[in-house]
Amino acid sequence: MSGTPTVAALRTAADFTALGREMHALVSELYPICRSITGEGLRRTLRVLQRETPLTIQEVPSGTAVLDWTVPREWNIRDAWVANAKGERVIDFKRSNLHVVNYSVPVRRRMSLSELRPRLHSLPDRPDWIPYRTSYYQEDWGFCLAHRDLERLPEGEYEAVVDATLADGSLSYGEIFLPGETSDEVLFSAHACHPSLANDNLSGLALLTVLARMLAAASRRYSYRFLFVPGTIGSITWLARNEAAVSRIRHGLVAACVGDAGPVTYKKSRRGDAEVDRAAAHVLKQSGRPHSVVDFTPYGYDERQYGSPGFDLAVGSLTRTPHGRYPEYHTSADDLSFVRPDALADSLSAYLSVVAVLEGNGRYRNTSPRGEPQLGRRGLYGSMGGYPDPGQLQMAMLWVLNQSDGGPTLLDIADRSGIAFDTIRAGADLLVEHRLLDPSD
Amino acid sequence: MSGTPTVAALRTAADFTALGREMHALVSELYPICRSITGEGLRRTLRVLQRETPLTIQEVPSGTAVLDWTVPREWNIRDAWVANAKGERVIDFKRSNLHVVNYSVPVRRRMSLSELRPRLHSLPDRPDWIPYRTSYYQEDWGFCLAHRDLERLPEGEYEAVVDATLADGSLSYGEIFLPGETSDEVLFSAHACHPSLANDNLSGLALLTVLARMLAAASRRYSYRFLFVPGTIGSITWLARNEAAVSRIRHGLVAACVGDAGPVTYKKSRRGDAEVDRAAAHVLKQSGRPHSVVDFTPYGYDERQYGSPGFDLAVGSLTRTPHGRYPEYHTSADDLSFVRPDALADSLSAYLSVVAVLEGNGRYRNTSPRGEPQLGRRGLYGSMGGYPDPGQLQMAMLWVLNQSDGGPTLLDIADRSGIAFDTIRAGADLLVEHRLLDPSD
Amino acid sequence: MSGTPTVAALRTAADFTALGREMHALVSELYPICRSITGEGLRRTLRVLQRETPLTIQEVPSGTAVLDWTVPREWNIRDAWVANAKGERVIDFKRSNLHVVNYSVPVRRRMSLSELRPRLHSLPDRPDWIPYRTSYYQEDWGFCLAHRDLERLPEGEYEAVVDATLADGSLSYGEIFLPGETSDEVLFSAHACHPSLANDNLSGLALLTVLARMLAAASRRYSYRFLFVPGTIGSITWLARNEAAVSRIRHGLVAACVGDAGPVTYKKSRRGDAEVDRAAAHVLKQSGRPHSVVDFTPYGYDERQYGSPGFDLAVGSLTRTPHGRYPEYHTSADDLSFVRPDALADSLSAYLSVVAVLEGNGRYRNTSPRGEPQLGRRGLYGSMGGYPDPGQLQMAMLWVLNQSDGGPTLLDIADRSGIAFDTIRAGADLLVEHRLLDPSD
Repeated sequence: MSGTPTVAALRTAADFTALGREMHALVSELYPICRSITGEGLRRTLRVLQRETPLTIQEVPSGTAVLDWTVPREWNIRDAWVANAKGERVIDFKRSNLHVVNYSVPVRRRMSLSELRPRLHSLPDRPDWIPYRTSYYQEDWGFCLAHRDLERLPEGEYEAVVDATLADGSLSYGEIFLPGETSDEVLFSAHACHPSLANDNLSGLALLTVLARMLAAASRRYSYRFLFVPGTIGSITWLARNEAAVSRIRHGLVAACVGDAGPVTYKKSRRGDAEVDRAAAHVLKQSGRPHSVVDFTPYGYDERQYGSPGFDLAVGSLTRTPHGRYPEYHTSADDLSFVRPDALADSLSAYLSVVAVLEGNGRYRNTSPRGEPQLGRRGLYGSMGGYPDPGQLQMAMLWVLNQSDGGPTLLDIADRSGIAFDTIRAGADLLVEHRLLDPSD
Repeated sequence: MSGTPTVAALRTAADFTALGREMHALVSELYPICRSITGEGLRRTLRVLQRETPLTIQEVPSGTAVLDWTVPREWNIRDAWVANAKGERVIDFKRSNLHVVNYSVPVRRRMSLSELRPRLHSLPDRPDWIPYRTSYYQEDWGFCLAHRDLERLPEGEYEAVVDATLADGSLSYGEIFLPGETSDEVLFSAHACHPSLANDNLSGLALLTVLARMLAAASRRYSYRFLFVPGTIGSITWLARNEAAVSRIRHGLVAACVGDAGPVTYKKSRRGDAEVDRAAAHVLKQSGRPHSVVDFTPYGYDERQYGSPGFDLAVGSLTRTPHGRYPEYHTSADDLSFVRPDALADSLSAYLSVVAVLEGNGRYRNTSPRGEPQLGRRGLYGSMGGYPDPGQLQMAMLWVLNQSDGGPTLLDIADRSGIAFDTIRAGADLLVEHRLLDPSD
Repeated sequence: MSGTPTVAALRTAADFTALGREMHALVSELYPICRSITGEGLRRTLRVLQRETPLTIQEVPSGTAVLDWTVPREWNIRDAWVANAKGERVIDFKRSNLHVVNYSVPVRRRMSLSELRPRLHSLPDRPDWIPYRTSYYQEDWGFCLAHRDLERLPEGEYEAVVDATLADGSLSYGEIFLPGETSDEVLFSAHACHPSLANDNLSGLALLTVLARMLAAASRRYSYRFLFVPGTIGSITWLARNEAAVSRIRHGLVAACVGDAGPVTYKKSRRGDAEVDRAAAHVLKQSGRPHSVVDFTPYGYDERQYGSPGFDLAVGSLTRTPHGRYPEYHTSADDLSFVRPDALADSLSAYLSVVAVLEGNGRYRNTSPRGEPQLGRRGLYGSMGGYPDPGQLQMAMLWVLNQSDGGPTLLDIADRSGIAFDTIRAGADLLVEHRLLDPSD
């Protein structure tokens, strides 16, 4: 792959302002589509992503047994509304696809407001926002609306219509595979099942799409796999059908909620001290900006499945404000204005930085371990002495030489020294060039 | 034992206000008795406890070799005083048994104040309080009195009388054994040798007596042993004579100073990370109230003996304000007003909570470890999705499923998740019922 | 060695005020000499130290290969100056040996100010101080001067003269060896190559000289080796030539910058948890005074060489303000007024305390591990009971008995108990005397 830039080089050269705008445009294009865990909305979304990257769309038939689950019937919706006695739509799916409880079974029924009331979901604390509700695994139907609108509904008779189908079909998901020098894989996964919610998770889809395109143009030590799957059932389906690939996954990240204005949050893998956990923590610390690193919990996105005890994959999750921690979460306020191009760009940069660490990390051995080798003779050290400190690159070389006894990795050395991984790696490259350092494994 | 309540259930159902009053009444009944490390006062005390629980009184003859020690001669006191030349008692054992140095040898002697002075003990900093002093292992005699009274003694001749006997007899201690499903034992131990000191340690005797009665009515996985022993020599005597029982002790607590108004303190076992240490720390943290957890030190009560290196038992100590850390410690101010019914009740509740954790803890194995099992299908999870958080019981089940790979125990999971042990255990019980979880050992 | 005092006893008896004055006098005597990494200045310095201690001077010929380095040619300087057109010396080596870049090659050249300017080094931020600069391993020449003086130099022609020789000769270093009961060694090393810089490192030379003299008069479990070496090349030379001695080094300290007014700093060995690291941290913590303990970094003094991965010796560095962290570092302001007798004495005391811990540390076994042995019977414990706390020595004995199961060392016990090592050791000695404790290895 000579001539192909490294991930670190690609990141350095990237125009993040333009990339942020591009990702926001992709979020905007996907926003109107009514997605669910199966159906045409999901399929259309994957086809848009296919335009940008070499994504293949997989279809798994309804009824297929996947681990403890079964692929459900496919849901497709044409329209849905609640109309008053005059036939005026007081709740209208065409205005927002959040208005219908996702996966509602077909219905067409006249009923009084009091009969209808238990099927109407609103947020009394956020009276202007429409909540997002689902009923995937129990046949049900309902509508969601702003609490202010709910309170304005007069008594009387209403017609509730869900013009949908729930029938055998298939579950769709998208997959991109970028082969690398080794068959060891890095997994990126984003849930693609939510309807018009911008941050959760069109932001994740847009970020991974651009990341895949960039990595496709980079030299790759690892192979990379990207999954665009319906939440829970999608990752479970993929895990059930890909035992061989699962066994090759060395590191992974679940991408979600990467476009809001909040600081970046890294949620560790179940293992807690996996290389990806250390890489993400290093990158965020070195960023010098507010961030947080939190422990794994078995709740959230598909890291729950990748981190179930029978798989225990080293898959963390890099988000901005975590799910459920911002009021707009799972409401109509998670819209296109909630997601910002600069935040998308900053998240993408963090993803690229983590990949650069994973690509560049390794364990080396000092070939001249007794005493320091004379760096000055090799032009690696200033000839004029007496200054209080050498430069960062010199310090990086001293650290790499001192620590490289076959134990610590470059990431360990970066953490121990407090020097950015890129500088440590640059020092290591110089030492390898001067035969003062050998890869140890 | 079907139908018998668990310790957790007993604790939930208990009327702690009534129990607090009951324990305080027991402290009050025992308060006037002049106890020592041997003798009738100790024996009478044990007989009072025997009225409440199936306690057996053990007698070990003077002169018996026990580890590095020898059971001392038995001390019994009828009266003691210092009288002035007019025959008026200026120090009178009948007013407070603290007035005589505990284990004083018999004496009847006329002497000047200056001759007597070295044998009079007081607390200049606390001039109204009588100190508690002992001389168990070196023959000696003396009196303790309020510093204010000491200063008022005019010069002149006095008669000092200790009407006591020190003669071959036996050392007494009380023992309760409650068999459980396994022969593995939980040990509770309280020192029973102090005269009229309420918190130290009539509070401990009262608490363990009520605890024993409650556990006798509960289903018990473990067997329980309660010791009411004279400090140091009593636990050493028991350890010397019960090698087999010692080898079965899995957890233990030394009960002392459990009735004052201070916050609860847990002093760890010598091991520092024994299950009882983790259980007590969990219970205190989950209480949400001020408390402290301190490291083992080889000073204090009989945890010193249980935690000597040749035994190294997992025995901690759950107290309120630790010994020596309150000014009333070992003085006449440690009286019935210093011990409060609500504090005794709160301590009892903490003991029961620790026992509930020990009884309920265990290691399990997720029977469906690849991906999450579909809880909704089994009625264990709400069917309507989209809410920011599931309930605590659902979170408990997710945590138990995620962590139960045969490694972490339920207590580990409770600590990791920050969820109360009771909820974790309730989640585990549901999962076992649905065959999603098996005991792993 | 009966009758010979222990290090702990020597330290207790020492008159640190007098020792501080003595060390400062030695610093003052050595201050004017122009040292370098080779040459007569270094040799003269070692000869002064030889007057105080049984130091041997080693000579290693130029051109000798030592690890990755080669012993350089020997540098000797007689005079150096820059003179203006009138022949007036505007920079004069005779006023301060810092004026010449150390190891400058011989030169005698007339040049304009603008030609000369790149060879003139100053500190714009500290305009009154002369910087210290070197060019050991690349042939070069130059002058250092106060920035204020540099700015005053008028345009015109100047004559630059370095009257020096750079020729085959040898590298000199000093070595003291004090045999002990075992051949295991403690290493002390100080760099001896800097010209007129008082704290860096005449302070270190003076401290080690006095320390060596004191240890020569003490009973010694360990053998002690003191090195007075030119920085980097000197320690590398010693390491290259002393493989057998290297293998016997168990603990070590690099002494430098021990005379300034700042608090004591301990820089850990590369291992980070070596016994010397724990001993130094204990001593500084117990001192109750401000101090800091910092992690190893592969920059600083000769701990870089001793701590290179092929040696990985347990050698830390005990300094006051670390190198490069005080503005006077490597400037003419590091003069005799910057170094204080009381600071030198305080540093010496810290070194002696660390040595006392190393000498006194060990692992013991309680011979009576079941229960506490009865200390009172043996006169080791007060007979009158009931007091809140026993004394420190009693607590030390209880701790030693409780912990000495063949695992923890006395230093471990001192750290765990918070009791000073000396007290712990005194308690252990009493217990050994009463056959309650045996050395375990």
